[in-house]
Amino acid sequence: MSTPGTPLPPAPLPPGATIGILGGGQLGRMSALAAAKLGYRVHVFAPEADGPAMQVAAARTVAPYEDQAALARFAGAVDVVTFEFENVPAATLDVLAPLVPCRPGVEALRIGQDRVREKTFFAEAGLPVGAWRAVTSRAELDAAVAALGLPAVLKTTRLGYDGRGQAVLRAPEDLDPAWERLSPRPLILEAFVPFAREVSAIVARGADGATVTFDTTENRHSHHILALSIAPAPGPAARQQEAQRLVTRLAEALDLVGLLALELFELPDGTLLANEMAPRPHNSGHWTMDACLCGQFEMHVRAVAGLPLPDPSRHHDAVMTNIVGPDSFARWPAFAAQPSVSLHLYGKAEARPGRKLGHATRLLPLGSVAESPDPALLAPG
Amino acid sequence: MSTPGTPLPPAPLPPGATIGILGGGQLGRMSALAAAKLGYRVHVFAPEADGPAMQVAAARTVAPYEDQAALARFAGAVDVVTFEFENVPAATLDVLAPLVPCRPGVEALRIGQDRVREKTFFAEAGLPVGAWRAVTSRAELDAAVAALGLPAVLKTTRLGYDGRGQAVLRAPEDLDPAWERLSPRPLILEAFVPFAREVSAIVARGADGATVTFDTTENRHSHHILALSIAPAPGPAARQQEAQRLVTRLAEALDLVGLLALELFELPDGTLLANEMAPRPHNSGHWTMDACLCGQFEMHVRAVAGLPLPDPSRHHDAVMTNIVGPDSFARWPAFAAQPSVSLHLYGKAEARPGRKLGHATRLLPLGSVAESPDPALLAPG
Repeated sequence: MSTPGTPLPPAPLPPGATIGILGGGQLGRMSALAAAKLGYRVHVFAPEADGPAMQVAAARTVAPYEDQAALARFAGAVDVVTFEFENVPAATLDVLAPLVPCRPGVEALRIGQDRVREKTFFAEAGLPVGAWRAVTSRAELDAAVAALGLPAVLKTTRLGYDGRGQAVLRAPEDLDPAWERLSPRPLILEAFVPFAREVSAIVARGADGATVTFDTTENRHSHHILALSIAPAPGPAARQQEAQRLVTRLAEALDLVGLLALELFELPDGTLLANEMAPRPHNSGHWTMDACLCGQFEMHVRAVAGLPLPDPSRHHDAVMTNIVGPDSFARWPAFAAQPSVSLHLYGKAEARPGRKLGHATRLLPLGSVAESPDPALLAPG
Repeated sequence: MSTPGTPLPPAPLPPGATIGILGGGQLGRMSALAAAKLGYRVHVFAPEADGPAMQVAAARTVAPYEDQAALARFAGAVDVVTFEFENVPAATLDVLAPLVPCRPGVEALRIGQDRVREKTFFAEAGLPVGAWRAVTSRAELDAAVAALGLPAVLKTTRLGYDGRGQAVLRAPEDLDPAWERLSPRPLILEAFVPFAREVSAIVARGADGATVTFDTTENRHSHHILALSIAPAPGPAARQQEAQRLVTRLAEALDLVGLLALELFELPDGTLLANEMAPRPHNSGHWTMDACLCGQFEMHVRAVAGLPLPDPSRHHDAVMTNIVGPDSFARWPAFAAQPSVSLHLYGKAEARPGRKLGHATRLLPLGSVAESPDPALLAPG
């Protein structure tokens, strides 16, 4: 079922049709490469003239996301639109959605843009979540802290990523500076979750409602940015399957067509709590490009184009290292030379600190991760 | 060692550098996608505005191969040039070669463009070849037929591919019409080789002279166009290795940097005879994209860019079906729906008869080909 007023693309989208991608970064680039493999043309819309996705697109629109005339022309030039990031301005969606099919789905984007709506939706869909309170005034912050206790994490409800727009509150004296820095934006206070690790699961949902899930991944961060993904997440298979069950339930509740990633906290007793979702290909799924017959980007394009979704099972275990910032980037020749490692670089012009510039995935025989005392040691590096 | 006068690129070529590709077809497209994975920019030069490779290029020059001014600008805009087809006009090479590194190598291209030079070079490099005679007059044709016997195959020395520019001579009365059709171009008469099958081997040679070879492939044709590739070629490992040894010897004799494919006839007793070479990625190596960590296109780009060459071993057996012409193309949804099959479509605007429009590769557990009574039955179709 599609949002009322949203047109449906022909299913399946014929080869030679044009997939519009909003956003010019690496997720758009890798989606564009996957679309080209399947014979589609790609039209990228982004404000930057020479971003990673622009370099591999058949057609380009360089314009602000608020340029309504350019958006209308873009909608007329493509057969379906997808998004490489979830913080698409509402005004952009208002122009595009009535004119052209937008996948994974406008509703999923709107919900994912707001942490309060997201947590509310998680709970309504039956996903376990940690305790939280919406905070729109200093009084509400005090009440929320009283209810949830400290430590807790205060976050902006919108436009946060990679650790930006948040403050950890450990003691009462942390409240004033955090409030000063983050208000007057709408905020959310989240109870501190003493998690053992973070895992993520990715589902693809086809135009016919069929779903497939990739193996659950364990993720390790450095300075709030994903550093390492380990596939499969070590541990009991039942826990892996539970994460896949939760992301599938969420995709069905959102009625989306395309890819959905869900980050979860795993508590020491194995309990999973939904943390954040992203209705798009996800950094923690990059390993699938090399370790599965059909990686997450092709799976996303297939879903968006109304094609069947192939078997998502992995043919290798995999450990992925993100290449972030200039120091890591300077080591690209070493990544290129390591055995059983597949190197991906994104074509970014500048290697600024904290910027994701590429990734490298080591393939390992099935079972290697389970047998390793610390699979992080298997990472390319 | 490089041809005198040919500049050398920096080794390795840094990310963000531009790889020039001469030719706009599917081999250029898949090379461009592999280059993008490694963070390179691609500039395609071709006479057609919207060919398969143009659709995924960061920069485009649409001009005839004889446009010297456009070629000189192209040479100035790229860091290295490679070729997606071997019949590049000599005038084109004369402009490019002094200005920019050309890989796999100008000499390999020149030799591969002429069947007489090619056969001569094969023999000089120590490769076994079938009997042949150069034919430039009707009298030479009669003499060649007397020497080699019938049946035999009369071919133009240049610009033949997929069975064009050749005639099978079975009886004396076939000579007149064949001569009339193919002369006055320089010709070659090749003794009929009663081969059991055709196989091919592909080597990559790095800037440092290191070589890696993909597994030897068995190829089956339909109407002179490759229909099916089976990897590995069934039969004794020693025979596979012999084909790989021969193509490696040839790459070293040509002193090329990049990919070289060699098609060989295998006689019923297992003897291999070199038939044709192509200094570029080859249709019979498309299976490597899905069945190896680093497929032939990435291997080619790595060699051209001076990067290390990874382990070329396959992680699956594979059988590839070419999608040729409108009837085969019409079945693309079936190819997209088959289990364990990876579909590649080339973005060509028209599905003309005899045109290569895509391919589909089925992955199979290692050992499947050897155990199958007829691996062709494993082909996607």
